[in-house]
Amino acid sequence: MTALFPGETFRFPVRVYYEDTDAAGVVYYANYLKFMERARTEWLSAKGFEIEVLEREHRIAFAVRRVEIEYLRPARLGDRLEVSFTVVEGRRASLVADQEIRRGAETLTRARITVACLDSANWRPSRIPAALLPHTENPA
Amino acid sequence: MTALFPGETFRFPVRVYYEDTDAAGVVYYANYLKFMERARTEWLSAKGFEIEVLEREHRIAFAVRRVEIEYLRPARLGDRLEVSFTVVEGRRASLVADQEIRRGAETLTRARITVACLDSANWRPSRIPAALLPHTENPA
Amino acid sequence: MTALFPGETFRFPVRVYYEDTDAAGVVYYANYLKFMERARTEWLSAKGFEIEVLEREHRIAFAVRRVEIEYLRPARLGDRLEVSFTVVEGRRASLVADQEIRRGAETLTRARITVACLDSANWRPSRIPAALLPHTENPA
Amino acid sequence: MTALFPGETFRFPVRVYYEDTDAAGVVYYANYLKFMERARTEWLSAKGFEIEVLEREHRIAFAVRRVEIEYLRPARLGDRLEVSFTVVEGRRASLVADQEIRRGAETLTRARITVACLDSANWRPSRIPAALLPHTENPA
Repeated sequence: MTALFPGETFRFPVRVYYEDTDAAGVVYYANYLKFMERARTEWLSAKGFEIEVLEREHRIAFAVRRVEIEYLRPARLGDRLEVSFTVVEGRRASLVADQEIRRGAETLTRARITVACLDSANWRPSRIPAALLPHTENPA
Repeated sequence: MTALFPGETFRFPVRVYYEDTDAAGVVYYANYLKFMERARTEWLSAKGFEIEVLEREHRIAFAVRRVEIEYLRPARLGDRLEVSFTVVEGRRASLVADQEIRRGAETLTRARITVACLDSANWRPSRIPAALLPHTENPA
Repeated sequence: MTALFPGETFRFPVRVYYEDTDAAGVVYYANYLKFMERARTEWLSAKGFEIEVLEREHRIAFAVRRVEIEYLRPARLGDRLEVSFTVVEGRRASLVADQEIRRGAETLTRARITVACLDSANWRPSRIPAALLPHTENPA
Repeated sequence: MTALFPGETFRFPVRVYYEDTDAAGVVYYANYLKFMERARTEWLSAKGFEIEVLEREHRIAFAVRRVEIEYLRPARLGDRLEVSFTVVEGRRASLVADQEIRRGAETLTRARITVACLDSANWRPSRIPAALLPHTENPA
């Protein structure tokens, strides 16, 4: 289990296949959200939480509440991208994260995403596991 | 509730949006299967079965077991297509159907699809509702 | 060709199929953006502009620059939704629109979307066809 | 550039994310075709051919002509799968391949896929690069 420190950024590689592109020759705008969600899932794995176990054994599910996303430059077929994930604010039952998609030194897309932690049995807010939040001086 | 007679073909319109296409400028090969499944769902609706009610109230789910699909000509952005669905064989717990995707008089794609009827609680084979099968001389 | 007046809202129906949902039993968060883009494409059609003709004959393409989207309540398998589209600001080479996805009286998702108009030959900003913008006091 | 010998099987790992699943809790049937295409693209990369370079510099594109696919067992959220690709017949302008998707020792899905090689400028059949075909009696 890899510990992430405050401000630490998790990075995950993604390659662009035909399935991701559209007739304009670039990645379809909704599909960047798929790339970002893959990185979030792998961040959970890196922290020791497998998404399928969280729901089955701990009744914890995550739901995206809000996304602000800017499309700066398009990604293209065959591109090897890097998707980042940085928690910027941890609340009791939600967290806010910044995510970027880069191709080498270029930032193609960046987003701020609010994710809620839910009890998967009743879809009510649930406390986020402490191990997922950035460490603070006096952790609750 | 519309009755379908033996050999009768159900038809459903689909339009091609950017989400369906890829960087080759045509509909991505997996997405024709989405169009075909939409037509199957709407055929169920036309027969009086709403897919979400079938599972929730009757514990019936459908699972595709086998697909043979031929890609003859590509569909393109903005195309207005027609997807057909014809049951060619009804068995106890599965059915075999032919599906075509046409643009006007042109057949773009055709498939033979085997769909199993399952008990959604245990994923075991379940008898297909009689109303979904082509009428025979001595219907059960 | 249907004229849209200032503040007028275009509405387009969408049904939820299995392809749109995920293992949480609801519509996958990126797929609401597909529904919104379908409504934008059909709004163009309603205004007399077919998306595939715009690019081929007029060298005009649209690219999403920014999305702010809030997920309020989930859509589910079989739902019959209505996607709205309202231009809230027309600029020279871009427009800002509000889009909502409703199920009956409930708002499930709402977004503010900035779309740029591009010259499809060189991907530079291009003037938006006047017919697509809300009428002003002295329409062109 | 890795050489593949006759009958040699290329293998590529895929993980199942929410985007791949549907409300039945399993991978949506069309999405297995995406996994298979990812493996084909990575097989090309392993042979020294980047898909985006093939089209841009060599005017070579690949189009799927026919798929026969059997769904044996479902894949689920979080699964770590392996997708295989084995050329079973190389013709002048097309190839036939077997692909399987496994989870550990279990075969979940298997397919036979016919892919045509096209001249991307006019979509006519084009000779498959020899390096992509299984070696024959007098290998280069």
